[in-house]
Order: sequence, then C-alpha cells, then structure tokens
Amino acid sequence: MRPSRSFASDNNAVVHPEVVEAITRANEGHVVGYGDDPYTESAVRKFREHFGEDVEVFFVFNGTAANVLSLQALARAYQAVLCPELSHIYTDECGAPEKATGCKLIPLPAPQGKLTVETVAHAYHGIGDQHHVQPRVISITQSTEMGTVYKTEEVEALARFAQERGMFLHMDGARISNAAAAQGMTLRQATRDLGVDVLSFGGTKNGLMGAEAVVFFRAELARDFLFMRKQGMQLASKMRYLAAQMDALLTNELWKRNASHANAMARLLEREIRRIERARIVYPVDANGVFAQIPRDAIRKIQERYFFYVWSEEESVVRWMCSFDTTEEDVRRFAEFVRGIVEQTPR
Amino acid sequence: MRPSRSFASDNNAVVHPEVVEAITRANEGHVVGYGDDPYTESAVRKFREHFGEDVEVFFVFNGTAANVLSLQALARAYQAVLCPELSHIYTDECGAPEKATGCKLIPLPAPQGKLTVETVAHAYHGIGDQHHVQPRVISITQSTEMGTVYKTEEVEALARFAQERGMFLHMDGARISNAAAAQGMTLRQATRDLGVDVLSFGGTKNGLMGAEAVVFFRAELARDFLFMRKQGMQLASKMRYLAAQMDALLTNELWKRNASHANAMARLLEREIRRIERARIVYPVDANGVFAQIPRDAIRKIQERYFFYVWSEEESVVRWMCSFDTTEEDVRRFAEFVRGIVEQTPR
Amino acid sequence: MRPSRSFASDNNAVVHPEVVEAITRANEGHVVGYGDDPYTESAVRKFREHFGEDVEVFFVFNGTAANVLSLQALARAYQAVLCPELSHIYTDECGAPEKATGCKLIPLPAPQGKLTVETVAHAYHGIGDQHHVQPRVISITQSTEMGTVYKTEEVEALARFAQERGMFLHMDGARISNAAAAQGMTLRQATRDLGVDVLSFGGTKNGLMGAEAVVFFRAELARDFLFMRKQGMQLASKMRYLAAQMDALLTNELWKRNASHANAMARLLEREIRRIERARIVYPVDANGVFAQIPRDAIRKIQERYFFYVWSEEESVVRWMCSFDTTEEDVRRFAEFVRGIVEQTPR
Amino acid sequence: MRPSRSFASDNNAVVHPEVVEAITRANEGHVVGYGDDPYTESAVRKFREHFGEDVEVFFVFNGTAANVLSLQALARAYQAVLCPELSHIYTDECGAPEKATGCKLIPLPAPQGKLTVETVAHAYHGIGDQHHVQPRVISITQSTEMGTVYKTEEVEALARFAQERGMFLHMDGARISNAAAAQGMTLRQATRDLGVDVLSFGGTKNGLMGAEAVVFFRAELARDFLFMRKQGMQLASKMRYLAAQMDALLTNELWKRNASHANAMARLLEREIRRIERARIVYPVDANGVFAQIPRDAIRKIQERYFFYVWSEEESVVRWMCSFDTTEEDVRRFAEFVRGIVEQTPR
Repeated sequence: MRPSRSFASDNNAVVHPEVVEAITRANEGHVVGYGDDPYTESAVRKFREHFGEDVEVFFVFNGTAANVLSLQALARAYQAVLCPELSHIYTDECGAPEKATGCKLIPLPAPQGKLTVETVAHAYHGIGDQHHVQPRVISITQSTEMGTVYKTEEVEALARFAQERGMFLHMDGARISNAAAAQGMTLRQATRDLGVDVLSFGGTKNGLMGAEAVVFFRAELARDFLFMRKQGMQLASKMRYLAAQMDALLTNELWKRNASHANAMARLLEREIRRIERARIVYPVDANGVFAQIPRDAIRKIQERYFFYVWSEEESVVRWMCSFDTTEEDVRRFAEFVRGIVEQTPR
Repeated sequence: MRPSRSFASDNNAVVHPEVVEAITRANEGHVVGYGDDPYTESAVRKFREHFGEDVEVFFVFNGTAANVLSLQALARAYQAVLCPELSHIYTDECGAPEKATGCKLIPLPAPQGKLTVETVAHAYHGIGDQHHVQPRVISITQSTEMGTVYKTEEVEALARFAQERGMFLHMDGARISNAAAAQGMTLRQATRDLGVDVLSFGGTKNGLMGAEAVVFFRAELARDFLFMRKQGMQLASKMRYLAAQMDALLTNELWKRNASHANAMARLLEREIRRIERARIVYPVDANGVFAQIPRDAIRKIQERYFFYVWSEEESVVRWMCSFDTTEEDVRRFAEFVRGIVEQTPR
Repeated sequence: MRPSRSFASDNNAVVHPEVVEAITRANEGHVVGYGDDPYTESAVRKFREHFGEDVEVFFVFNGTAANVLSLQALARAYQAVLCPELSHIYTDECGAPEKATGCKLIPLPAPQGKLTVETVAHAYHGIGDQHHVQPRVISITQSTEMGTVYKTEEVEALARFAQERGMFLHMDGARISNAAAAQGMTLRQATRDLGVDVLSFGGTKNGLMGAEAVVFFRAELARDFLFMRKQGMQLASKMRYLAAQMDALLTNELWKRNASHANAMARLLEREIRRIERARIVYPVDANGVFAQIPRDAIRKIQERYFFYVWSEEESVVRWMCSFDTTEEDVRRFAEFVRGIVEQTPR
Repeated sequence: MRPSRSFASDNNAVVHPEVVEAITRANEGHVVGYGDDPYTESAVRKFREHFGEDVEVFFVFNGTAANVLSLQALARAYQAVLCPELSHIYTDECGAPEKATGCKLIPLPAPQGKLTVETVAHAYHGIGDQHHVQPRVISITQSTEMGTVYKTEEVEALARFAQERGMFLHMDGARISNAAAAQGMTLRQATRDLGVDVLSFGGTKNGLMGAEAVVFFRAELARDFLFMRKQGMQLASKMRYLAAQMDALLTNELWKRNASHANAMARLLEREIRRIERARIVYPVDANGVFAQIPRDAIRKIQERYFFYVWSEEESVVRWMCSFDTTEEDVRRFAEFVRGIVEQTPR
C-alpha cells in the first residue's frame, strides 16, 4: 500500500487546517466580487505589515501566473529576461512567459540553481543594438529549484547589478517562506531589503489550497497591473477565498511555522540519507528539498511505493521535497525504505 | 446596515455547503499534483456521465480562462470570433481573448443578448480574402448576459450555420446550469445535443468557490489542450481542490438544485418588481437575472443600501442577479425597499 | 483589351520616374546595412525639414506595418484603439493590429469615414475599471477610406480630446499627401500642427515602389521604436533603397505634385460621372477617390474591362481611385465607358 | 578614403544590374496589387521550375519575416523550435520569432554552426509532458552563420529525425544559393530533395534589392499562409516589384552566378589571409564568409578603413563576407591591407 504522504512535491500536500478554517470563516454572506471586499482588504493589510506600507499586492491563482505577470509588468516584448537554465520559468511553464510577454528568456548556467553577477554580466551585451533583445529583468528563484538558498550578499549583488543598468530584479518566491525561515529572516528582510523589485510570493507550496501573490516593492511598477491581471485571466471573481488563504498564511507566523517544519524535515531526511553508503547528497540542503544521487536501479523500485520525480536521468539524481505536513515518522520510514532498496541493489 | 446578501451578482454568493464538504473530504493525504489524482479522475467521470463518454474536460480557475482557452483551441490568430456586442468575452474580459488568441472578435448586434443566424450571416464575408480575418467561431452565452435563454431551435440553427461553413460553435456557459434548469433539460441536452462544439462550463456562479471547466464535445479539438492550459497559466498544482468542487456540483444534481432555486428567486423578484408602477422589466426573465428600468434618481438611493450594477446609464436600467443562496425573504425585503424608494422618487 | 491603367487603387500604379532614378543613384558601392548609411541620413533630414527638427522617423515596408507599429509604440495590450468601423486598420489588415499589439480595436460609426469628438466620447468609458480595456489611442485616416478629408478643426478637436485624457492621436496617412495637397497645406500643417502624435506616412500609394514611414512628433514616444521595428520584422537590411524612395518623394515637392495630380484626376472623374444620369456620387470627392452608386448590373460589365473594387455590394457602390499616373485621357475614356454601360443597363 | 566595397556583409552590396533591369521592365502600366499580377505569376512559375510543380511560394520583405512566418506556419505557441545557439533566428532578430509565434526557441550547441542529430536528440524530451514545450521544428541555416555548409547526409539525417517524430525541418536559406553553388547542386537538390519541409529562400544577400520567399515543399503546410503573411505585415501592395526581383534571380542562373562568384572571392580571401602569419582561419570556408582570428589590436586599425563586424570579442575573431559584387582586386587590396596592419601590430 502506498503511504499517505510522499516526497514528490510540496504541492502534493494538503491544505493546512488554519487555512481551511479561514476559508470557512470567509464563507458567510455576500461580498462584492473581484477584490473589493473586506477579506481582500485584510489580507492586503497583512502584506503591508510584513513588507512595508507602500507595497502593492495582487493575488493570482498559481505560481506560473505570478511569475509571468511579474515579468509582463517589467518588460516589453523586445526586452529579455535573464534566468537560470533550470529555472521553473524557463523549463516548467510550457513557454507561458514567452507567449504572454513576447520576451526572450535567456537561459544562463547556474550551478546549484543560482545566478551570479559573473554569469549575468556575461549575458549583458548587445545593449542598444536593434538586432538584439535588450536585457531588462534578472529573475532568480528563492529558494532555488535545487533546494539551495541565495545568501544575502548574493541577492544584493544581483540587485545592484540590475539597478545600475536600469534593469529589475524579479524573485520567483514559490518557496520564499522556506528561504526566509532557513535564514532566520523576516519576509521583508529576505526580499525587499535585499533589493528585489517584484516578488512572486508563493502560498500553494506552503499550505494553501491555491493562491499566490505578486508583490511590488516599487508602487509605480504596479500602475497598470490590475488590467494585466484581468487580461492575463487571473482575476478571481470570488476573491475572498484567495484572500482568506493569504491572510491565514500571514497570521500568527503560519508561513514560518510551515516553512520551518518543512525545512527541518528536509534536514532530517538529509541526515538519514547520508547514512546510506551509496547515496550522495548533491546540493546543499538549505531549504525543504533533498537531491540525492542513488543507484539507477534503485530509483524505479523506490518509485513503486513512493511517487517522486527524477531530477536527472543521466546522473541518476532524484528530488525529494518535504512539506509542512511531512512528519518525522514519514521521513524515517521513507529513509529506511530507501536504504533497504539501495542496499539490495547490485552494484 | 447593509443586508448580508445583495443582488449584485451570483458571484457575490458564498460557497455551497456541499461543496465545502467535498473540499474538506479531499483534504486528506498527499496526492500527485496537476490533475493526476483520484479526485480529478472522479470529477472527469462525472462529466462523462452527464455529457457523454467521449467528452474531454479540463478544469480551469475562472470563466475568462475557460472562454479564452476555448477560443484558442478553435481558432488561429488570423481567424475571427463572432459574438454579441455586449457579450462577456467582448466587453468584460479586458481584451483577454484578443491578447491570448490574437484573433479579432467581431461584435454583432444582439437584442436580448442573442445572436441569430441572420446577424451571423451578415458578418460572414470576406472568406478567402487575405485582407480579412476569417470567421471561425460563433460564441454565444447561455443563459445570456441579459438573463435570457436561447431556445433549442435558436442554438441548433447557429450550430448548423457553423457546421456548414467549417466553423465552430462555442458556448460561454458561465450560467449554463441556469439555462438548462430553466428549460427542464439535462446539461447534455442543453449543450452538446444542440450542436455546441466546446462549452465553458460555469461553476463559480452556481455555488462553487472558484472552478470552471472547458468541455470538448469533439475529442479531436482537445488534442493539445493540456499544453494550452498550462501555457495559459491555468493549470492548478493542487488540482484536487478544483476537481472536488466540480464533483460536488455534478453530484445529486446540485447544479440543478442551485440553478433552479436562483431562477425561482429571479421570477419571484420579477413578480414583485412588476408590481411597482414606475419600474419596467426590460428583458424576459428566463434565468436568474432581472433587468429593470427604474427612475434614475432611485438607483443611487437603492445602492446606498444594496450594492448592484447599473446595466445602462443612458436608459436607467439596472441588473439584479439571484443566486443559489438568495432567500425568498431576501427578495421580498429587497423588492419592498426598491418600491419604497421608487415611490418616494419625484417624477 | 484591358487598358493599361485602371481605377482600382493607387497602389496599382507604377513607380514614379524620379523615384526610379533615385533608387538607381543609390545603387553604387557598398554601404552599411540597416539604416546606418548616407541615404537614410539624407532622407531623415528631409523629413526633419518638412516636419520639424525634433521628429523621429523610421522607414518600414508597408502601410500595415506603419500602422501596427505606431499603435504598438502607443499602447499596451490592455489598452484600446478607437477607430472608424470601416478604417483600414479595422477591416483590411487581417487582424494584424490585434495580433501584434494584443489591443482591442473598438470600431466606431464614422459616416464619410470620419470620427468625431461625439462618437469618440461615447466610446470613452470604463476608465479605471479592471474589466474593461482602457482607451489609449484614437486612430484616424487622412484622407479617409471614403476619399474624404478631415477639416483642420475636426482633427484639432480629436487631438484635444485625446490630449486632455492622456490618450494619443494616431493618423493613418497612407494618403496624407493627398489630404495636404487638397487643403493647400504643408505636410506639417496637415499633421503635427493639428495635434497628431504619430503619423503613418504613406509613400507607396503616391508613387513609391514600396516604402512607408512612422513619424513621431514627440520624440519620447519613439524611444524603443528601433527594437519594435526589428522585432516587428520591418527592418530592411538594404535600407538605402527605402530611404532613396522617401528622399525623392520629399524632394522638389514630388509628394505634392503626385498627390495634386491624383486629386485633380478624381475631381475630373467626379465631374464626368455626375453627368451620367443613373450614377450618384456618394461621398464628397475631397482627395483622389470617387465613390459612386451605379446600377448593379452595370458593375459587372464595367469590370469586364476595368478591374476595381465594389465598396458596398448591398448599396451597389463602387470605389474608383486615381493615382499620380492617371491621365486625363484615362479618365475621360473610362467615364465614357461607364456611361455607355450604365445607359445600356435596363432599369 | 574608404574603399567603395567592404567585407562587412553581403547585404552591404548593391543590386545586381539584371535585377534593376527586371524592376524597370515591370514598371509599366497598372497591375492589380497584392500578388494577383503577371509578374508574380511568372516568378512563382520560376520557383516551380526550380523546386517542383507542387511547391507553394510566398514573397516577403526580409529574411526575419521569412523565418518567423515559416515557423508560425509550422508551430503553435506551446511548441518549440530547436536551433543553433548562434543562429540568426536566435540571436539576431530581436526576439521576433518569440513575439510572433509565442514559441520557445531552444538554443543548442552547434560548433561550426551546424546542428547534429545528437544535439537535437538530446533536446528532444518532455514529450507529452504538459509542463514542457513540445519540440516541433528543427531550424537550420544553410549556409550557416559561420560560413560552413551542411553536407547532404547531415541535412538528410536531421530531416529523418524530424520526420520520424512528427516534427518539421525548416531551413533558413538566407544564403542557400551560396550553399547550393558551393556543392554544385541545384536549388532543389540542396533543399527539398534532402527532406527540408519549409525554406526561407534568400534573395537580398544575393543581389536583390529586398525580397525573400517562403517556399513550402508540402503544400498542405501553406494552407492558411496567405493570412499569416498579411497578418504578419508582410504583404506587399505593389507585389510586382518583389516578384520581378525574384524572377530575375531565377533567370539565366543569376542565383548561381552571383553565389558562385561570392564563394570564389571568399576562397581567394581565405588563401590570401592564410598567408598572413598571425591570422588564423577558424571555420572551413565553405561558402562566402571568412572567419579569422587576428591580433586584437589589429582589428580596430583595419576597421578605421574597412567597416566589418567582430564575431567574437573574446576570441578576437572577425567575420568577412564576400558578395556578388566583390572583385578580385577588392580582395587582394583588402588582404594586403590586413597583412600590413597585422604585421605592424606588436605581439
């Protein structure tokens, strides 16, 4: 029998009870649609408490939309987005950014998922040349698709690079809570204070049912965003149910409790996996993901019981994600099972 | 004090308790994301029970997306969509169809919200002329934006017109349940059996939290729709929560119970309003909307207590929508209030 | 035998000898591609002499591109373009504006091809409403698609309306030379001085081989236009051959000589046609086009010898255009032929 | 004084006299616009003589358009184009392909400008996975941007790979004449017979004023191309002047004479440059381009007299192109000049 919780993705998890409760509380009486309601007002207020009074925030349905609409707000079609070659926007959104923005996304090498000023500077050329797309946005993911976390000075350096060239720094924060929690920072410290211009703030992977936010740290960038969101098919009529989720996430530090727990489970899993002789942890476990190289033949066998994704077929690397609802027992039982399979696998 | 329920829109309503319950039931254990889960499987099965075994169905977040993606599946950018000049896709989606599909939407006169073969035939020209967009899709709304319902033979005639010319008939069914219930038809009888090719099946306005479906009655039209949905930023990672809603709506005829009730409340409201001397019902109340012409000065005063939309400033026509949670008492109290205001309004 | 010149369109004409000569003169030695050459420099200088030192001008291949790229420079996808319902951009460009800009084009009634402040004001609504596209550009055609010419005060009023609302006035000047010549105005007086923001300056219909220009009267609007032109597939590698054409057109008043002649021929044709009992001139012949209502059965017979377009099948109205190479004899012979056919046509 | 001919690009050259003559001959009397004229008919006939009776051919203004519209005819927005990382469509069209098609272009390593089955196979993955763009087109350039020419079997292997997977092979033939001439093949042998599906046939770089063609070897792929061309702003009203150019190019083997001459001049240049001690030819000189590594300090000095492009700043590689009007004397004088500068440059 399959266990009830896997390590495939943090979006395989349930909705946190406090979020369900918030939705239920919001389910009372009529309110105006499309965001002009007290639940949205309250949730926006929470964002301003966390990120600063002058931020502009917009709720959307999913992370792809948060990313794509962020980029659209920052770039025209002849401009380019510099991003890691394995970033979600580049590889996992079925070309949504290109279609919606018309922009070219320029994939850059990013060991451990991180852009550096050096790689970005290398791609910064052709400025003013009418034949070339014009670099406009640097997009980074925090925590990264490899489960690593940019350090403070790494983000700051990219922000400075962008700012000095009239470019913008976008952060795909599908797991920003995990990164902030891992670093012991507030959400603001982990984003705005480092120089990020626009943040895709993730909720779904951190215990919500389905809600993300686009947060603008410079209000003028958000001027026409209402229209972009609607034209981008991302305006919820019953907005209160997105807002209530976000409100709950930003209440009583649910964002941090969930993220910290997921991170802790990943560290536990890392420790357990390191004890397996033929398993190798391939990226620093900075947040809630564990990437391990294990014998090829073991993968399929583990997958017979646990669903998860192979990160690299060629290198026999798998990805295991922990979520807010992962338990210590889940981890130990899984690690035990992995160990058993690996040890049985002929060399 | 504002009353807890208004007549502004059926999307101002709450989520039906059976839907909340379904969501809660689905909130158990990990399941694979993006639609490969038992809840989605079950919901799709329900759609096939209602519409036929061979339909293809895809869940999306909102009605704009259901419409836009339907059109995208049917038309290339140099083709055109014929639609009523006051249709939702033409006037209320901030140009989402044009941006996403590249198509021109051709607005046609549609008294009472309905296209006819005559108006469509008038716009069917320039075929094969490289300077002209090529008509490809007829898009109708059922029930219409004016609260009327196309009769069986009216839809059939449009479907025949489309089919004979290699065009498609799309139905914006944001309120298809209201239309089917009003006509005593099954969902299939009200759509597929009349010749509709692709249906935007509405859920949000009929008691869901936020879920719509694109239903293809000819499977070949859906061939690449998975990619279009993802690229269109409409793929939910925690799909089970959309699926559970839809499943509930198609279980024990919740769709019909909700819609019939809303329709009945609209008829009650119509009757009450007709009793007011200076109020005039301007469109047949076929479904759950009541459009009334009332003295201009009364509108503002009524809006001080009840929020709703003015349909036509020029003609002093207002729109009142009933929903599944509208009560008889809501209607009577509202009508009473309207009457009081109108009667006090100087001629 | 078909005559060598018809009245179908001014783009059926040849290239003026002075233009051929200019091309030939430019056909000497290597020059850098893409516009960084002395021919382009010279042509741009000519534009600045005619329109003012501070204009920005860009050459493109055809009129559709001039229009589409102008609109793209002025509007984002969630904004709208107000235009006459029979304007070229709305009906004759196969949806190019919508596809390239993502914008909705809102067709407005325009008797005799002209927008008025009243019709535009009527369409100016939904401002700030996230569901509605936001009016951003008024696009007018001068001379119009019906061969009429906006009067000075008519353009000025539209420009004022636009300016007061943060909108822009775009002029499709495919035949601006005809309009200016007809009014005895310079090109600048007929455009910039009336408040036009961006002009599609037509050359092809006035004796060029194939070249149009986008002229920005406010340089800041052109800031990124180099990139838009390239991305819009409108950057000529051998730019000198476009530039040489434009240079010739703006030299020794070729633009005016050509346009005045075409206008005069249209007036002659008008006079001749008016002498036919059953022919009716339907629009003022302000420029180089004559629109006439003639017996339906005559049309086909005239077309057996002369190719031209039927403007309105329903009203039996035809369009006859004169060009720089139309001769008096062409006109008289054609009018004679038309008269013969019409008179033979049974009532 | 600057010499009258440089080695910057084959598009810096003049128009071949036979082409000018053809244009002049076409400049006679009125003909219908937009392609329905005898000149276009004749040019299309020539294409069919060269490529086969059943090809469909469409003239456009420039190479970017030929490429972009080819891709648009072959792929929907959620599909992907595999191309060399230094291909023109990827690096030199300011993102035109992405904007117009919505597709992602996937850049692949291509030493000497050539894709191989191995590199393409490596990028062929994620098939059927809704998160990933779906590979649909392989686009190669012949001759390549590095002046090399794919061998027969190299193209055939890519065509086979594509065909077996339901993909298409597009050839950017901006310099296809140079490639065919270099291989002693007919235009058909060098394209269609190798399995190419759609060809961007270049004219401008081979002696035309400005005209390219999209040639479909499978007529069904061209079904709606008329509309795509118009909507893509690439329909010439005075089409005869594009057609006359193409007609001339395909008459009396002008395409081959021009290309062979340019190729021969490149080989001559190669020989001369090889005689310079510190110059290194970096790619095989298969067609009309010579890529040489020369001392960094020499580049700037040579550019003081001759304009040309630096191919790689980092590796100090320059690009020199020969064209149909390059003379032996041009080559010898230039090589002499280069030699002088290089020899004076301190090591």
